[in-house]
Amino acid sequence: MPRYALKVEYDGGPFSGWQRQTALPTVQGDIEAALARLEPREHTIAAAGRTDAGVHAVGQTAHADMDRDWSPFRLMEALNWHLKPAPIAITACATVPDDWHARFSATRRHYLFRLVVRRPPVTFEAGQVWQVGHPLDLAAMREGAAQLVGRHDFTTFRSSICQADSPVKSLDALEIEHVARADGFAEYRFHVRARSFLHNQVRSFVGTLERVGAGAWAPDRVRLALEARDRAACGPVCPPHGLYLARVDYPDDPFAAAE
Amino acid sequence: MPRYALKVEYDGGPFSGWQRQTALPTVQGDIEAALARLEPREHTIAAAGRTDAGVHAVGQTAHADMDRDWSPFRLMEALNWHLKPAPIAITACATVPDDWHARFSATRRHYLFRLVVRRPPVTFEAGQVWQVGHPLDLAAMREGAAQLVGRHDFTTFRSSICQADSPVKSLDALEIEHVARADGFAEYRFHVRARSFLHNQVRSFVGTLERVGAGAWAPDRVRLALEARDRAACGPVCPPHGLYLARVDYPDDPFAAAE
Repeated sequence: MPRYALKVEYDGGPFSGWQRQTALPTVQGDIEAALARLEPREHTIAAAGRTDAGVHAVGQTAHADMDRDWSPFRLMEALNWHLKPAPIAITACATVPDDWHARFSATRRHYLFRLVVRRPPVTFEAGQVWQVGHPLDLAAMREGAAQLVGRHDFTTFRSSICQADSPVKSLDALEIEHVARADGFAEYRFHVRARSFLHNQVRSFVGTLERVGAGAWAPDRVRLALEARDRAACGPVCPPHGLYLARVDYPDDPFAAAE
Repeated sequence: MPRYALKVEYDGGPFSGWQRQTALPTVQGDIEAALARLEPREHTIAAAGRTDAGVHAVGQTAHADMDRDWSPFRLMEALNWHLKPAPIAITACATVPDDWHARFSATRRHYLFRLVVRRPPVTFEAGQVWQVGHPLDLAAMREGAAQLVGRHDFTTFRSSICQADSPVKSLDALEIEHVARADGFAEYRFHVRARSFLHNQVRSFVGTLERVGAGAWAPDRVRLALEARDRAACGPVCPPHGLYLARVDYPDDPFAAAE
């Protein structure tokens, strides 16, 4: 049974998240339905990150087991055909060993969060960025972000329904990039990297750092919130629609040759 | 009656173009309806470019006459409020002299056309770029584009329903920028500038140059097509949804102080 790694891009807006749910539109459900058009039977795929409702991906990675030997290019083309018109695209496909696993083989996840400072509503990026109307202090946000990098107990920054065994995680990076937009307004891109994340961790970080940028929180309060190990100490969790699963790293990039 | 210049951004997808039409959604119609919420009466606004159905704008410029003295910021905010949820945003607003005219005072129009080379369907930019699945030869497209710059009879590149008095126009620039996209695929941005344009002129240019990039046309055939002064010599007119009215120039930028 040949195994295929799939690089998946999706606009999370219309979906109740990645994970298959009865009677609700999900990304996993749509891809498994497309696979069933190619090989009629039940399919179960695994993914590196089970993104929440409304969260997007440009570099989600999944794997699927097929009965037939598909050329990766033909499998990608056939899936994209059957996925239409859902806003899901398979952007790369490669054969991988039978023991390669999209979730368990992953060594690092990269998330991107897009925050736009602009009073007029966005048009082309509606549902694709978090928009605020007030200016943000980049230096203060960076000062706050620096408190979070490293190995910590992130109880403050995980949702109360998080199922991870331990709240202790190593945050490799939380970098904030200032982007000069063509429309003249400011955009801040939060680049967040770790081996794995807790539930709502990135949105808890960004929601808290936005409060720092707005001047409502002193940067040092981020450290105090972290040290409190108390969910109640977290800033507001920001909306999902600025968040993107950007990339997943593996010991050997399965798509290196395919792309 | 104070006059206001409005900088307008819109996703042209849901609209039957800029120009007001009975019983069809148009950008002009929506903005005039929003103005009527502020000052209840008939409003008629003028714009620099009457974009076709499906064509977008990031820098359309219009003007409106109001009875009351609005602060430009409050007028912008009130219009954006009443325009929701249409994908139209007023991104700048400024008072202008009574004899300033969005269309007749304009000295140059800038259009942008976005062409993406990628086989998997685009997700976030659906309806916002023209997508082709085959590679394009940038040098050949540039060679073809160079034939079009300057003062010419553009009969070949205007729609048969074009109402301009003369087909002779001066094309100031047709530059093709290669953009390295985050998704790893190629994008070509056509930057086109002139004092004024004929109907379908940019889409006729891009549709023809795509044929050159695909290798179906030799670059020199663009010059022959131009010299033929015959609509039948034009390449295929490309779809509207990659086209953006990007900017309009005036002797004095009305938004210089406002932004």
